[in-house]
Amino acid sequence: MTPSTPPLSSRFSINQMTVKQLSLPELVDACVRLGVRGVGLWREPVADYGLQASAKLVRDAGLDVTTLCRGGFLTAVEPAARAAALADNRAAIDEAATLGTDTLVLVSGGLPAGSKDLAGARERVAEALASLGPYAAARGVRLAIEPLHPMFASDRCVVSTLNQALDLASAFPPSQVGVVVDTYHVWWDDAAPGAVVRAGATGRIHAFQLADWVTPLPAGVLNGRGQLGTGSIDLAWWASLVELAGYAGPVEVELFNDGLWAGDGVALLADTASRFAQILG
Amino acid sequence: MTPSTPPLSSRFSINQMTVKQLSLPELVDACVRLGVRGVGLWREPVADYGLQASAKLVRDAGLDVTTLCRGGFLTAVEPAARAAALADNRAAIDEAATLGTDTLVLVSGGLPAGSKDLAGARERVAEALASLGPYAAARGVRLAIEPLHPMFASDRCVVSTLNQALDLASAFPPSQVGVVVDTYHVWWDDAAPGAVVRAGATGRIHAFQLADWVTPLPAGVLNGRGQLGTGSIDLAWWASLVELAGYAGPVEVELFNDGLWAGDGVALLADTASRFAQILG
Repeated sequence: MTPSTPPLSSRFSINQMTVKQLSLPELVDACVRLGVRGVGLWREPVADYGLQASAKLVRDAGLDVTTLCRGGFLTAVEPAARAAALADNRAAIDEAATLGTDTLVLVSGGLPAGSKDLAGARERVAEALASLGPYAAARGVRLAIEPLHPMFASDRCVVSTLNQALDLASAFPPSQVGVVVDTYHVWWDDAAPGAVVRAGATGRIHAFQLADWVTPLPAGVLNGRGQLGTGSIDLAWWASLVELAGYAGPVEVELFNDGLWAGDGVALLADTASRFAQILG
Repeated sequence: MTPSTPPLSSRFSINQMTVKQLSLPELVDACVRLGVRGVGLWREPVADYGLQASAKLVRDAGLDVTTLCRGGFLTAVEPAARAAALADNRAAIDEAATLGTDTLVLVSGGLPAGSKDLAGARERVAEALASLGPYAAARGVRLAIEPLHPMFASDRCVVSTLNQALDLASAFPPSQVGVVVDTYHVWWDDAAPGAVVRAGATGRIHAFQLADWVTPLPAGVLNGRGQLGTGSIDLAWWASLVELAGYAGPVEVELFNDGLWAGDGVALLADTASRFAQILG
């Protein structure tokens, strides 16, 4: 952290998925009214509103688009499926550039149907990065590999740890490929703190996201991420570690939670921002 | 593997939990009729039937008790709770000795209520092992630390990887403390194969259990383990690796699955044994 880096508590960004009950204009309006300066956007709602219209909306509101979620899903074996995945990722890179964000989050994808070959799937992710990294860099966009919790290894993301993500990234310049540190996915891993430091030292922490861990997990385990402060993760500790590792960027809160989505989105955003300030202040 | 070690396919053991719809006498009877030679028992059904009666039943049937499940839950902070946990584990060790098994499986326990201190909880497990290891060894029982999948880190087991379990075990002689390799819990981990080899080289693979990984996970994620061959894990590869690492003991199948429990237990045992022979044959 340089002396001019603002404190963590002032670097809040709301990931769009956290308040997915809000339309994009509602989200932008709420951010402006609540003083939230950063948003992480998702491709689907951006496409629904229109890419250019979305870009104009957030730009006119003075919001910083901290990430675009998400590219990836690069584990297919068949040439046609692989070509389609690469084309879709190039489109995602273009969208990120249009939206004015420098970071595209990548979720690697799970095992192809019937496959038991995790190592092979991870290798195909590496091959895809070699194709996508230069394309992204030429457009001012960095690819950020997000390791997901190992409970998603088969069906969503074969990259399960921060060290695996860094191993993949390290074949490329940091300006092309880095990682996402998301507390929800890495908190259990006693090798993750070392990996955070390693990622920071090489300039590869391209995004930092917060969510808490709560149990029992819901069926399918996707939409059970905990609101800040309600679970088992020492979020302030992780934020301090990421900062110590040299990260000076925005801190996104990304929750997938059916219970939170059932309530009022603006109140949820306000509560999330308040919890963020309290925990990281 | 020495020349006299029987092949993996002949070392099948059924963990009692897999067919929990069977009473202990029904299980023993089914094992005898189906030619199953090994059973892994659980403390609760053993207590229900009576410890001495259970020991006599399996002994008279000529069955090998491959493990007793389970001790552990050693993460409490309060002295009274810690003392109670140690007393319960000494009782479990005594029960293992009475049942004639040399292996007590330990599940470490999760975070105490309100705690976010994973490292501290792991340290308390280490302290408890120092107390329990000699007690167990004096009774001919080895403690086997079972790392559980990271999705259980907060509420059930703070030991999430095979390397963590080995780090804990390595403070003690292998005759006191080793590990359980369970495919369900470690399959996603690219550091696990190396840990298996490390565990084998130091004589610390005290049990080997099979279950397959299937999705979507059910709510609570406890009872969704897949029948052999129905999921994403290359079970034959893991079995070969464990054998290459020098393990010559029984191979337990331990499934927790509401769907399988809803059916006929004897048919389930027969199907499980058949799948085992096919996959490992």
